[in-house]
Amino acid sequence: MKIDKKNIIFNNRVSIEQIEEGTELCPKFNQEGLIPCITIEYETKEVLMFSFLNEEALRKSIETDKAHYYSRSRKNIWLKGEVSGMYHQIQDILIDDDQDSIIFTVKLNEPTKGGEKASCHVGYKSCFYRKVKVSNGKLELKYTEDKKSFDPEIVYEGTENPTKI
Amino acid sequence: MKIDKKNIIFNNRVSIEQIEEGTELCPKFNQEGLIPCITIEYETKEVLMFSFLNEEALRKSIETDKAHYYSRSRKNIWLKGEVSGMYHQIQDILIDDDQDSIIFTVKLNEPTKGGEKASCHVGYKSCFYRKVKVSNGKLELKYTEDKKSFDPEIVYEGTENPTKI
Repeated sequence: MKIDKKNIIFNNRVSIEQIEEGTELCPKFNQEGLIPCITIEYETKEVLMFSFLNEEALRKSIETDKAHYYSRSRKNIWLKGEVSGMYHQIQDILIDDDQDSIIFTVKLNEPTKGGEKASCHVGYKSCFYRKVKVSNGKLELKYTEDKKSFDPEIVYEGTENPTKI
Repeated sequence: MKIDKKNIIFNNRVSIEQIEEGTELCPKFNQEGLIPCITIEYETKEVLMFSFLNEEALRKSIETDKAHYYSRSRKNIWLKGEVSGMYHQIQDILIDDDQDSIIFTVKLNEPTKGGEKASCHVGYKSCFYRKVKVSNGKLELKYTEDKKSFDPEIVYEGTENPTKI
């Protein structure tokens, strides 16, 4: 956003009216200093990923219009796209009624090492590429995306898989 | 979903391959026993709200096709719509790559005490009814919904506002 860094101010939370019906930005970070963030694609409204931000990640995202997220496993801020080229170019930031969760609406980039526009480190466009279904009376996951958008072994070569068991 | 309660099984997490590329449902609940949940409207893909589920809330949601959420402030499970009539009728449940966040795709009901189909306790359709904008060089929230869908003082008469300062 076109804004001077020093004017990125998060207001103190003083009343329910201010929080729910006001025009002041007063985000609530949880006990770990984090706020949940949902990332959706600008053109399709598709949910791409879910993450957390700390205060600095939110500030950097506002300042640069590129999504910065907070990694709870690595305990640091990361610029989405830094390794893969698949930046999240922020178009809009929305906040919910009690200002304790955020939406980033983003445009995607193609991965720098080949493939189509995508977001998920596994190779799919969205992280939510599986649906819960009942099959033979039991729960099962069914793929909603036919094929990967890129080859993660090429795009993320030499980097650690962020998924933890 | 048409499934016997005893067949709602959450599998143990044993490998990254199973979690990311498999067809077994193995959701990860955090240290507080919760998993983040994004609720989107089936017809429009609009994000309606963000919440958390505990294991029981997820089980009840799967069993009944009505969204049950976990309230961290009240420390209990609540059936969305129980007070207002604005149930979240689950159409699909999606899970992300590392199976630590969930999407409920839902259809909405009108509030029982008048108004249009909606979801947010403040009276708007979505909880995300404000966008962060720059105005005169400063951050400000701008409404994305023109008017409330229902009167919360009628629909939620006598109940406590869930928003905490």
